Amino acid sequence: MANKKEEKGITVKKEEDMPEWYSQVCLKSGMADFGPVKGTMIIKPLGYSIWEKIQENFNRTLKRHNVKNAYFPLFIPESFLKKEAEHAKGFQAEVAWVEKKEEGERIALRPTSETVMYDAYSKWIKSWRDLPLKINQWCNVVRWEVSDTKLFLRSREFLWQEGHCVYETEKQCEKEVWNILDEYEKLCKELLAIPVLKGKKTEKETFAGSVYTTTIEAFMPDGKALQCGTSHNLGQNFAKAFNIKYLDKNEKTQIPFQNSWGFSTRLIGAMVMTHSDDKGLVLPPKIAPTQIVIIPILIKGKEKGILKKAKELETFLRNSYSVELDERTEYTPGWKFSEYEMKGVPLRIEIGPNDIKKNQVVLVRRDNNKKIGVNLESLNKKIKTELDNMQKSIYEKAKHFLDFSIKKVSEWNEFIKVIKNRQIALSPFCGDVNCEDNIKDKSGGAGSRCIKEDIKDSKVKCIYCKKPAKYLVYFSKSY
Amino acid sequence: MANKKEEKGITVKKEEDMPEWYSQVCLKSGMADFGPVKGTMIIKPLGYSIWEKIQENFNRTLKRHNVKNAYFPLFIPESFLKKEAEHAKGFQAEVAWVEKKEEGERIALRPTSETVMYDAYSKWIKSWRDLPLKINQWCNVVRWEVSDTKLFLRSREFLWQEGHCVYETEKQCEKEVWNILDEYEKLCKELLAIPVLKGKKTEKETFAGSVYTTTIEAFMPDGKALQCGTSHNLGQNFAKAFNIKYLDKNEKTQIPFQNSWGFSTRLIGAMVMTHSDDKGLVLPPKIAPTQIVIIPILIKGKEKGILKKAKELETFLRNSYSVELDERTEYTPGWKFSEYEMKGVPLRIEIGPNDIKKNQVVLVRRDNNKKIGVNLESLNKKIKTELDNMQKSIYEKAKHFLDFSIKKVSEWNEFIKVIKNRQIALSPFCGDVNCEDNIKDKSGGAGSRCIKEDIKDSKVKCIYCKKPAKYLVYFSKSY
Repeated sequence: MANKKEEKGITVKKEEDMPEWYSQVCLKSGMADFGPVKGTMIIKPLGYSIWEKIQENFNRTLKRHNVKNAYFPLFIPESFLKKEAEHAKGFQAEVAWVEKKEEGERIALRPTSETVMYDAYSKWIKSWRDLPLKINQWCNVVRWEVSDTKLFLRSREFLWQEGHCVYETEKQCEKEVWNILDEYEKLCKELLAIPVLKGKKTEKETFAGSVYTTTIEAFMPDGKALQCGTSHNLGQNFAKAFNIKYLDKNEKTQIPFQNSWGFSTRLIGAMVMTHSDDKGLVLPPKIAPTQIVIIPILIKGKEKGILKKAKELETFLRNSYSVELDERTEYTPGWKFSEYEMKGVPLRIEIGPNDIKKNQVVLVRRDNNKKIGVNLESLNKKIKTELDNMQKSIYEKAKHFLDFSIKKVSEWNEFIKVIKNRQIALSPFCGDVNCEDNIKDKSGGAGSRCIKEDIKDSKVKCIYCKKPAKYLVYFSKSY
Repeated sequence: MANKKEEKGITVKKEEDMPEWYSQVCLKSGMADFGPVKGTMIIKPLGYSIWEKIQENFNRTLKRHNVKNAYFPLFIPESFLKKEAEHAKGFQAEVAWVEKKEEGERIALRPTSETVMYDAYSKWIKSWRDLPLKINQWCNVVRWEVSDTKLFLRSREFLWQEGHCVYETEKQCEKEVWNILDEYEKLCKELLAIPVLKGKKTEKETFAGSVYTTTIEAFMPDGKALQCGTSHNLGQNFAKAFNIKYLDKNEKTQIPFQNSWGFSTRLIGAMVMTHSDDKGLVLPPKIAPTQIVIIPILIKGKEKGILKKAKELETFLRNSYSVELDERTEYTPGWKFSEYEMKGVPLRIEIGPNDIKKNQVVLVRRDNNKKIGVNLESLNKKIKTELDNMQKSIYEKAKHFLDFSIKKVSEWNEFIKVIKNRQIALSPFCGDVNCEDNIKDKSGGAGSRCIKEDIKDSKVKCIYCKKPAKYLVYFSKSY
């Protein structure tokens, strides 16, 4: 048994080799596996159940915003991808094509669906009565990454949601760009216990074809940021390229305004990396498919009584929580402890002969490993408290790390130091694309995450080029 | 307004031109649209909400059977597709390939996922403790159909679920093949109100790579059958090809048994074709995203009172049903009646000044168009009755049509007549693949649907070749 336990465990420390640690956590917890084609992945049942919970949660949000789900084709004619010039340029390198052609035209696998959806919108939208049109789809997309693929974080195919809305006015459109970004932040914070930076992207990082892009960015324990969701104000760019028009109430032809927004299974990677530890996965209680595992300590001769009590407990707790009873006899309790620690189950309940005598159980929280004896009378209440506390506690730990990592600096040599320390520099920036290229180049890879706020004071200078700064911007390395 | 109504309506009759009628119902009701690449389709919000309801329903079934959802890659290496010889042959013609290659190997877009899943299973399954392994995925699949594509019924990309399970014993495996088929029948019957024929396929119609295939088949009003779901007993064929093995309790290496089963968005097409009429879609109440629409009859000067009553009604009914109030003033009640008939809303409630005086509303059922005055006191109960009755009634109508269409014949000239009449011939059959080819050829296109029962009496002869018959088989034309 001892051997088995060792080979199951994670063989490197999170602190020491984050990429290898991360990969082992994903694989050994049963979250994911590698697909047979390079850069592809399998989302195993544990990982997929988390995606389903995210979907459930966000589908409720979509309903509140009157966004309807639909499904558009995987296949996009090459001519569509070329219609919006910036968009075409932005995705050129990573588009995968099908061998078949249709009437001589190449066919792409969707890297994102603006083009195929807006072609349809141009036929569906005729009048102000048809607006706003708000559609979302859950689907797979393909981006043929050539290197550095990672489970959940970067793969040639991934699952996501993409919302695509059309409005009569610019104001309605902009308002919803930010509303959705707020919803993304809320989902990360409340469900996945991930704190994020939130704001507009700089020009360099703007989505190909949009007027501006907004983003939420999580900060990983290895000092690299991870983009977790984006919401784009497309203005009239795509409407013009795809000839989307409507007749207003005065029967005048108008061009509508559009936004698009999405998050992907990458969120799962962010969650794994943020909370997990050297024993394996740590799942936020609100998203854990199994919140509690009951492990009976089966002492010879007393198995029956203990199992009976454990089953009673399971039935009782099932009314309020998702609970699993592991009554297998072919594994020792110790083996099972490691197993459910690896799988990230938030609470473990141990029940043995002594506990029965004392009318209690032992409760162990996954994140802090604290063991508490709890009387059966107060168990239900105690579980609720511990699950709530764990959800809060892992968020606060991550929030503390994020806050602590942000260093406000306005001198270039300090900037360099902050980046070298794998932290986030909050610095004045001119906004220029070339200057941002230089910053990345000279700092060893720091890119802008998002704009914290505009700078009105013309005396404040850019951290790098020393021209007047327009924005206060978060910079860091990133995934 | 009159003009507008006409152009909105369906311009052909179901009886007279079924393909054109079907296409118009799908398009004009807002269920679907054509995609830009030939043979692809867009599932619009109305159609997709029906798919979501099917998913919800079947996810509950999966949970009951302990099947877990997961996600496997879209991309499959060519070598995988070739491993199981029959399977490779079966899908050869319709596989689409990506232009990119990986280490010189071609990459296919999944036409089905046996190969990519079972390669993973061969790594995951080590011991009897890992069995049964039961996984399902909801995903898109690609089959490059060259002709005769139809919305929902046949398209180059479609959505489906595919379940893939592995068992220690042949008995467990076979049992679940049939259990799932029963669940498919139940879903069709109880949710979609579609009656089906159910049974084993003949050898000719067996899934490429399986030991045998079972099927449910619906019968469309134009006299063509539509395969609505299949459940395959794969035996050990794929386990051998993909080297799936396990150690049993005695530490002996064993080869497990497998099944796979799936249904697709084609179900939605079957539902549309079965129930809809010349006014548009007819949706079974249990799956309709909107079960009731309230249309206020706004007479000048009395709008306020009527709208107030309509809103009260909406609030009241919302507790028990999915209900919509159409209070738009830019459309006439008549226009709205046609609109919601086209969209298949099961019940319409009309409320005008006279109704308010009488403390009643007018209820109109979509399937039979009957108008009933209902007192507000008994409205809730009456609605429940009418929705239940409509669900039953449209099923029974379809069941009656199916039963009436089955003709038991044992003479070839009768067989020909039945097929010519666009009905189903139930006939003795030898089971031979060549004989079945001949039957199709000589009858003008009748294929076997499924086996009703085995024939033990050696005196019974095959309908075509007159050799001893093995089975009593349903034959008809099909989609």
